[in-house]
Amino acid sequence: MFLRNFWYLAAWSETVTRQPKGYIFLNEPVVMYRKRDATPVALEDRCAHRRLFLSRGKLSEDTIVCDYHGLAYDPTGACVNIPGQEHIPSWARVKSYPVVERHGCIWLWPGDPALADADQIPDLHWATNPGWGAKDRVKINCYYQLVLDNLSDLSHVGYLHASNVGTAALAQHGKVETHVNGDHVTVSRWTMDKPAPPTYRDTGGFTTNIDRWQIATFSPPSYFSIQFGAAAAGSGALDGLQRRDRWSFQACHFATPITDKTSYYFWAIAHDFGEDRDPATAALYFPEMYGILAQDIGAFEAQQECIDLDPSKPTGHISADGGLVGTRRILERLYNQEQNNRSETDHMVTV
Amino acid sequence: MFLRNFWYLAAWSETVTRQPKGYIFLNEPVVMYRKRDATPVALEDRCAHRRLFLSRGKLSEDTIVCDYHGLAYDPTGACVNIPGQEHIPSWARVKSYPVVERHGCIWLWPGDPALADADQIPDLHWATNPGWGAKDRVKINCYYQLVLDNLSDLSHVGYLHASNVGTAALAQHGKVETHVNGDHVTVSRWTMDKPAPPTYRDTGGFTTNIDRWQIATFSPPSYFSIQFGAAAAGSGALDGLQRRDRWSFQACHFATPITDKTSYYFWAIAHDFGEDRDPATAALYFPEMYGILAQDIGAFEAQQECIDLDPSKPTGHISADGGLVGTRRILERLYNQEQNNRSETDHMVTV
Amino acid sequence: MFLRNFWYLAAWSETVTRQPKGYIFLNEPVVMYRKRDATPVALEDRCAHRRLFLSRGKLSEDTIVCDYHGLAYDPTGACVNIPGQEHIPSWARVKSYPVVERHGCIWLWPGDPALADADQIPDLHWATNPGWGAKDRVKINCYYQLVLDNLSDLSHVGYLHASNVGTAALAQHGKVETHVNGDHVTVSRWTMDKPAPPTYRDTGGFTTNIDRWQIATFSPPSYFSIQFGAAAAGSGALDGLQRRDRWSFQACHFATPITDKTSYYFWAIAHDFGEDRDPATAALYFPEMYGILAQDIGAFEAQQECIDLDPSKPTGHISADGGLVGTRRILERLYNQEQNNRSETDHMVTV
Repeated sequence: MFLRNFWYLAAWSETVTRQPKGYIFLNEPVVMYRKRDATPVALEDRCAHRRLFLSRGKLSEDTIVCDYHGLAYDPTGACVNIPGQEHIPSWARVKSYPVVERHGCIWLWPGDPALADADQIPDLHWATNPGWGAKDRVKINCYYQLVLDNLSDLSHVGYLHASNVGTAALAQHGKVETHVNGDHVTVSRWTMDKPAPPTYRDTGGFTTNIDRWQIATFSPPSYFSIQFGAAAAGSGALDGLQRRDRWSFQACHFATPITDKTSYYFWAIAHDFGEDRDPATAALYFPEMYGILAQDIGAFEAQQECIDLDPSKPTGHISADGGLVGTRRILERLYNQEQNNRSETDHMVTV
Repeated sequence: MFLRNFWYLAAWSETVTRQPKGYIFLNEPVVMYRKRDATPVALEDRCAHRRLFLSRGKLSEDTIVCDYHGLAYDPTGACVNIPGQEHIPSWARVKSYPVVERHGCIWLWPGDPALADADQIPDLHWATNPGWGAKDRVKINCYYQLVLDNLSDLSHVGYLHASNVGTAALAQHGKVETHVNGDHVTVSRWTMDKPAPPTYRDTGGFTTNIDRWQIATFSPPSYFSIQFGAAAAGSGALDGLQRRDRWSFQACHFATPITDKTSYYFWAIAHDFGEDRDPATAALYFPEMYGILAQDIGAFEAQQECIDLDPSKPTGHISADGGLVGTRRILERLYNQEQNNRSETDHMVTV
Repeated sequence: MFLRNFWYLAAWSETVTRQPKGYIFLNEPVVMYRKRDATPVALEDRCAHRRLFLSRGKLSEDTIVCDYHGLAYDPTGACVNIPGQEHIPSWARVKSYPVVERHGCIWLWPGDPALADADQIPDLHWATNPGWGAKDRVKINCYYQLVLDNLSDLSHVGYLHASNVGTAALAQHGKVETHVNGDHVTVSRWTMDKPAPPTYRDTGGFTTNIDRWQIATFSPPSYFSIQFGAAAAGSGALDGLQRRDRWSFQACHFATPITDKTSYYFWAIAHDFGEDRDPATAALYFPEMYGILAQDIGAFEAQQECIDLDPSKPTGHISADGGLVGTRRILERLYNQEQNNRSETDHMVTV
């Protein structure tokens, strides 16, 4: 169940170059490269002639030349050269995907190109800020929704991440509010006057109790923006603090489906420290992210393995799952809309 | 085709501890651990909330706490804590398996708990005897019945084990009797006045011809008890020998299904030597078992591979297959009984 | 879609010995070995008793003895010994394949033995000539027809093999003729007065422009004979040259299906140099074959992977695909003939 008429984060900008690279997104092979003017291109990664991955080929100016028999395709997917013949038959083209580079990311639109609207790309302007602290892309062996489930219920931090950023208080005593706003869900979780978890002590320097917040916002198809941080207990964080009084971060998490059981997990984090903190010290937090995410990914892949043993087994929802339920409802509604629109279009075509 | 209302050997006692471990038995995920009083526990290894393996979690007193969101289950499978809420919904439970520790083994009952009767556990009292010589558990890539086929026809010893415990005489000149007694089959094979095979010469010290016996008894679901040994030819072994005049062993073999194509093979062996033999010398036989079983397992896994190439290909039965046919008939009868009983129960429930 | 009533190249002669070896051809397990008089034998590699690969067994005179329970099969596939019993039941036999050794190759006939005619074996007499330069058998992960597609359109040499034997001129300026003659297709490709590719310069010593030819002939089920070479541009190669004036090779390529997605790729090459060339120098070409084939195989396996992503995606034919289309038509026609003949036979049997 993949939404198609949405922008997906396909790659970090610097990984797409003049050397074509092959990917799979939403079960479809895609080759990405840059034109001579650096504009990114995304084409179906399958020569229309003999079905070899085009990503094995070479660029010639702005075209990609199949490594097998030399057919060349331009950035629109049209074949512009077939060695040994003048005529280009109508079958000789591959799908071209709308693709936009923005905020240090390459965004791919797998759906109807006529609907692709770059204004829908999430605002990640902070991502190109020097404050951007760390980022990564990990190929994971699970369905992308397991990532969204995880991010929509941060009560898991108290257990899965108990060795670094979690304390049981997060799940037991959190003040959780879930707001659904159109296609977006925001889950805010405040934990007041509790001891700091190990990583907060080590990298944030908190030695007394803290007020802590995690504010996660979902946007379809699979993006979570998370603001989180801490301040000395009772210093007024809940009512709004000046920037210099808090220790806070902005993170983005994006799960891009590869197949039904594999995904790319993109994440990035930037700090938002107050002026009276030493950025060098605070940046100690960044490397922790790799370990935290490794714990999440370990859980996702184990879940997938467990689900595959018997996919018919049910799940249940707990109180903390308000965000998860909201997220899934939005995905289901949007998916049904896409299917209905497609049926109507098909109907019109048929009539 | 797995029997469910039977005890399966699930683990050697010493491998189940306060550290939860995950298994798959009969296609179902199972987590096993010990309570503080050392009693073993076996639960469905899948949290009812988000379907993560519970075996990734930690024990808290006698409960197991899911590593993802902290749901805790007691040894009956009931969820007793959901972080962040008071109410425990009815879906919040996992299956609990009857489990018994006896004779150094953990026995698991995958069927209807109401029918679990510990008196049906096979008598392996000798297994906890200091005489227990060697044992192992091997994960093998084949359907469990291939193991039973093997053990019900020990004529294979003459070929598959020709390098250690076999001689062609075993298959060619054996005196074989098969007795079916209710749900049990006993195959006894006597080979009189033949040269000793290599391992018998090396570890049993036989330099002249021997009378040799192999008496294998099947009990459902997948247990073979095997008594085997040798004595000097003509010394009266067939008519019953005093213990001190024979060189004999007791072995148990148990195949526990993991999936349709993987199994655990448990085996153990104890000696039963006469008093006038040096146990240290005789125990030379034990290490041979690892090599003998490696030959068997090599054949099983090759059979499974061969079967998978075309499962429709038939098999045929030879004279030596009396035990195999008897064993399979019992399994088939018991399986049909279980299915019929289940249908009746379902019917009653429906009405 | 495999043709059955044809000879397949199953092994190089020297690899079939008195030590039985297991293979899979056309999805069927086959064991091959030699009788005491060195005649090759090919039997179904699956004991009729318990379905173990016979290739795990040992030879006894001209029979193969199953390693599990000692059943022995003669070269006709008849079971001739079952340990412990006199009677040989009718099920106790395995399929025997017609097999012929000729030209240093073992040829296997997977179809109706009554139709096996050794005169249909391709003439590879040159293959046992001391001039035979290099050969190999590679197990590749693709459907065998991808190999035939490759060999029927040598325009790919200009792209896939650009690093060694290819130049773009091959595809762009070749003079290609395709002739279908019954069950055979010949594609001849001449490229006149063009620079020599790297390997031709290095191993053939061509420093000026060359006239170059590639003449590939397909014979079912999956054999390509290829003659190729070069001569100084304008020296009259197109009109027929004396042997001493050309630098030319004879190659055979044979793709034998293992399964639907794996194959054996056999190839061999012999030189056919003029007398005024130094064979030692010219033979420099032979090792290049391994690298050239590695490029082909890389493409085949990538194609298979790409096809598996969505087998419903179409292909298209370009001008250079005349040989490919001819080859496929022959295969399809022969396959339909085999199916129809089988239906008729089945019908006769039923009536």
